[in-house]
Order: sequence, then structure tokens, then C-alpha cells
Amino acid sequence: MSVIQTAFVAGTRGAWRIERITAVTGQALAQADRLAVVGPDEAGDVAAGAQWRLDGATGHPRYATRQELDTLAAVQQGLGRPEARCAALIPIRKNPAWWALGQDERRAILEEQSHHIAIGLEYLPPIARRLYHARELGQSFDFLTWFEYAPQHADAFEELVSRLRQSAEWRFVEREVDIRLVQDDPTLQGVV
Amino acid sequence: MSVIQTAFVAGTRGAWRIERITAVTGQALAQADRLAVVGPDEAGDVAAGAQWRLDGATGHPRYATRQELDTLAAVQQGLGRPEARCAALIPIRKNPAWWALGQDERRAILEEQSHHIAIGLEYLPPIARRLYHARELGQSFDFLTWFEYAPQHADAFEELVSRLRQSAEWRFVEREVDIRLVQDDPTLQGVV
Repeated sequence: MSVIQTAFVAGTRGAWRIERITAVTGQALAQADRLAVVGPDEAGDVAAGAQWRLDGATGHPRYATRQELDTLAAVQQGLGRPEARCAALIPIRKNPAWWALGQDERRAILEEQSHHIAIGLEYLPPIARRLYHARELGQSFDFLTWFEYAPQHADAFEELVSRLRQSAEWRFVEREVDIRLVQDDPTLQGVV
Repeated sequence: MSVIQTAFVAGTRGAWRIERITAVTGQALAQADRLAVVGPDEAGDVAAGAQWRLDGATGHPRYATRQELDTLAAVQQGLGRPEARCAALIPIRKNPAWWALGQDERRAILEEQSHHIAIGLEYLPPIARRLYHARELGQSFDFLTWFEYAPQHADAFEELVSRLRQSAEWRFVEREVDIRLVQDDPTLQGVV
């Protein structure tokens, strides 16, 4: 439950090849060839000359109850599975109306109305995810969500994202960028 | 509801004179004469040669409900009141057991068992406060709470702090330092 600080650096380096960068709502991010996912100590070197860099930190669960956490823990798998060669990075910013809500109001919209936790659970274990918080780091996004899945679950991932975007919670999203990535098969590659 | 990033820098500069620094639980912080409370742009300059620097960022309310937020908003006053010449900075770190709890468990301990929000409300408006989050900034504390009050409310402040420290929530506090400060009367001083 310790905090993991991560920088996502888009440029010419990194283990992930960027397939496409799409602006879903609001301003896009610049196109780039590759994405490096690195810790804070490496970020400075990698970011030199990069197109953009987004920083985030994992944190404690803001909304999930004990029961939901236990249900998630029983089925979820970690990042870095060899077969999970597809990834998505989805940075999101919510509007000021969201941040002015009380905890009870945000929880009601997120779960009781939008079923955010329950929908994510339906796609476990194939679609692994990690949520990074960025708002209090002074970043231009509030959250960076990282997803990893095997190519055969690409359709399921599209369905997951589509369902969340139709939810009541997403009416508070004022900026969203969708970045799709592929991990090159290491058996076909030289050293990246 | 935007995020305010602040650095607390202890050394020889700043508008606040440090009266004492006390380790309540765990390791102390080094003694110093003055505390500067500055934005991120100024922090680098002020921090050169300082004893220590703590960074924090305000955020959205993690536990307070709409009703509680409305009640607080109706009575609280802002920071910077001329008569509020006393201040306290109380950095706190909670233990891993706290951070592993679900939102429902943390809310129950914080409010239904410990009455954290309700106790703070009893001391409004005399004792103004601002909570900064630090955990996801990679800091050695999780929270930095800043309090301001007039000298005639010093006893009330001691009572507030004492009641919170006796609460169930405080069993999760593994490090706490209590820093007391006084703003020198500007009519008696030269330029600080």
C-alpha cells in the first residue's frame, strides 16, 4: 500500500510503441513514437527532448469499500504479465463541479449511479489496471489510468472504456486523451 | 476548489517565529528560528540553507459529506486574519494499516468513532485550519495541517489537539510533530 511514483514519457525511447493518441474530450497530447514508463529517478534523463511527460502517484483507494477491495483482490492480476502486450494510458481531468462535491456525492455518482468499480470488476482478471493520481502533483490531468491486456482481449477493453464513457460520472470529465500502446515482441527485437 | 501547493521552510527566514518544535510520536524535526510559508516558485530560493522543508498540496475533501461541507462553509473563516497571530503546523504520518483500509472503514474511524470533523467544527470560527496532503508527493509525512488563531484562543487550541489525539483515529498515527509559531506584531518590528 506504499505510494508508487511513475513518469510516463513520450518521445523516441521506451518499451512501449505508441499506436495512436486520440483526444476524446478537450485538448490532445502531441504524437510520439514510443512511451517510457519510469520511476522518478530515471525520469529526468528519459524526458530530455521528449514530446511530453505525465507524472502520477498511486494512492489509497478513494471510494472502494472493504468488501469491494476484497472482491477486487481475489480476482485481479498484476501488471507485467508476458501475454499482456497491449496497453492503454488514459489521462483524465474532471471539472471543478466534481471537485466541489462531498465524498458522499462523489461516491454515489461513481458507484451507485455509474457502477465504475463493478464494471471494472467484470473485466478482471484479463484487463489489469493501475490508477495514478496527478491533481495534487500540479499536473494538467487529475488521473492517469494504465491498463494492460492480451491482444485477444482488445474487444473487451473497448467495451469497458465505452461503458465508462457513457456513465453519469463521465459527465464531469472535461479532458480525456486515449493513448494506445503495444509492447514489441522481445523475441523479434534487438535491445530497445 | 483548485489545488494550492505550499512549501513550509524552516530556517532563518519567514514571517513566522518558531516558538517550539515537539516530537509527539516518532522522530522530531530539527530546531529552527523561523518558518516561511511559500508557493512552489519561491520555495527553491527560500530553502537554500534551510533546516528542513515540507511540501504539501490542498485537495478535495476526502471524507466530509455535502451536509458537513455546508455546515463548515457557513462558519469557517479564512487564513490570514490580522488577529490570528498564533499558528501551529502539525505534520502527521499514518501507519500502513490505515492506508490498507477501505473508504467505508476510514470514514467510520475518522468521523463516526473519532468525530474528527465534528470536533473541528466546535472550534470554528476561532481556529482556522487548512489541510495539505503530502503522501502522494513522496514526502515523509502524509498530512500537514496548518492552524491559525488569536492568542486568546490558545487554550481552546490545546483542547482541540488533545481531544483529537485521544481519538480512535490517532491510534493509526505513527509519526507526529507539533510546531508552534507566532507572527511578530508588525507594528513592533522592522521589515522581517
